[in-house]
Amino acid sequence: MQDDYPSRIETRAKVQPRLDPVIYPEAETPILSSCTLSTQQLNDFEKNGYLLLPGLFNSSEVNEFHQAITAIQQDESLKNSPVAITERGNSELRSVFQIHQNHPLFSNVARDPRIADIARRILGGDVYIHQSRLNFKPGFKGKEFYWHSDFETWHVEDGMPRMRAISCSILLTDNNAKNGALMLMPGSHKEFISCVGETPENHYETSLQKQEYGIPSNESLQYLSDKYGIDCAEAAAGSVLFFDCNIMHGSNSNITPDPRSNLFFVYNHIDNMVYEPFSLQPPRPEYICSRETIKTL
Amino acid sequence: MQDDYPSRIETRAKVQPRLDPVIYPEAETPILSSCTLSTQQLNDFEKNGYLLLPGLFNSSEVNEFHQAITAIQQDESLKNSPVAITERGNSELRSVFQIHQNHPLFSNVARDPRIADIARRILGGDVYIHQSRLNFKPGFKGKEFYWHSDFETWHVEDGMPRMRAISCSILLTDNNAKNGALMLMPGSHKEFISCVGETPENHYETSLQKQEYGIPSNESLQYLSDKYGIDCAEAAAGSVLFFDCNIMHGSNSNITPDPRSNLFFVYNHIDNMVYEPFSLQPPRPEYICSRETIKTL
Repeated sequence: MQDDYPSRIETRAKVQPRLDPVIYPEAETPILSSCTLSTQQLNDFEKNGYLLLPGLFNSSEVNEFHQAITAIQQDESLKNSPVAITERGNSELRSVFQIHQNHPLFSNVARDPRIADIARRILGGDVYIHQSRLNFKPGFKGKEFYWHSDFETWHVEDGMPRMRAISCSILLTDNNAKNGALMLMPGSHKEFISCVGETPENHYETSLQKQEYGIPSNESLQYLSDKYGIDCAEAAAGSVLFFDCNIMHGSNSNITPDPRSNLFFVYNHIDNMVYEPFSLQPPRPEYICSRETIKTL
Repeated sequence: MQDDYPSRIETRAKVQPRLDPVIYPEAETPILSSCTLSTQQLNDFEKNGYLLLPGLFNSSEVNEFHQAITAIQQDESLKNSPVAITERGNSELRSVFQIHQNHPLFSNVARDPRIADIARRILGGDVYIHQSRLNFKPGFKGKEFYWHSDFETWHVEDGMPRMRAISCSILLTDNNAKNGALMLMPGSHKEFISCVGETPENHYETSLQKQEYGIPSNESLQYLSDKYGIDCAEAAAGSVLFFDCNIMHGSNSNITPDPRSNLFFVYNHIDNMVYEPFSLQPPRPEYICSRETIKTL
């Protein structure tokens, strides 16, 4: 298959324009009606590459999520499961993957029309879950997630052909700049930044703690930051952040006592299913990238 | 000498009230007249433990500081000097100590009445420089400075008897929550949090990269954060932040391309000179703590 977004191949970082729409045309079979994005919101998403929707889930729903997460955190059997990623250097839980498969509550949330319909609208039709996870950034010692474009990784390591995927992050605690809220470069989703350095085998075994490949160069980040600036997605628990698969984003550490935890669902359009990884490495495991279990929502 | 603020002795963290004033009575011999703190500003400092003064240095002064710092950064001989501290895990410059002794420009800045008179007013009389340093938090990979009370370290490791010292931080770049501006717990300077764990010998050799002792417990930080909240000292280059020696403060990492660098002078009242360290360890070197070279400004 042709590689329309080559990365980790050349010895110098390159910038190429995005080849794909950000907002896809509406599907011919109309989607469910509860999608409430206004034309203004669609335009904002197209321009900025992200959209913050305050209070999409109410406090009793957020409480229900917290109870389910506490059970996950206390599940000792999970700690030895590959889906559970701990922080580098300590045993603190950093991420839990594949929650849309393993947890009935979160499986339902992934299908909730308040978010799934927005994904269907932006991506123009039927979608499936490419990846899902809980991200904890614990208080006192939560670590950075360095700058990256998700698409760069999903393309190179998973074989996602084109930019037709979207992340939905449900804020489980109040997120602010002090506790390491997500920072995004608005508009950066319009350019694809290739990275330097071949992907090592089984990169995912370390990259989920700290990514070492697929990292944009300092020059690329300076270029994007000068051109687009940096926004910080500050909002209360229950808010939802949608962001394009190719937007440059990352977050700082968290030394405050307040944990920053979020629930992530990555929606991919059914016509954009993953093939063989463009890195020519073996595919990443199913819990990181749906391949065998693809089902339209 | 009696230890009025014991720390790193017991096996449990304790909270004790501050025994010292925050604003000392004005000295009998009146200080220079350029100190412009209003009663309101003095009250704010007393209550919050810090005071942010925007634009105290103008842009041409800031440029002059930047030029001097570039020369310091390019000085290869400095890299092997003990006054230069690099980041843990890389050779990026993190701090340079004793700049008030080694650099004529910064020696003059330390004496500048716009800041020195404020220190004299708050501390009630003659002051000397206990410590000075440049702190770099480089873009992309600047690391955290974890929560601490400066006084806890200066008391235990340097033998500073009482709380009669103040830090003055001159912002050399714009500081904001995204690039790791200083976070402070306003009001926390009124309580002394003792820490757990005996100080190892030559602690300073590692603590200036990452402090491992003299760290408040999670419970102490949660207590202070619940009681006082967390402020973030966001301001433009040229602004000055004064903060009390005992205020709980720290800062997150910096993954943005924008460096966060600040100049620090610690003023101590001449009657509060350091004695033997309360840890009973040998004193830290002169470049970290003035002992042999104490001179009233």
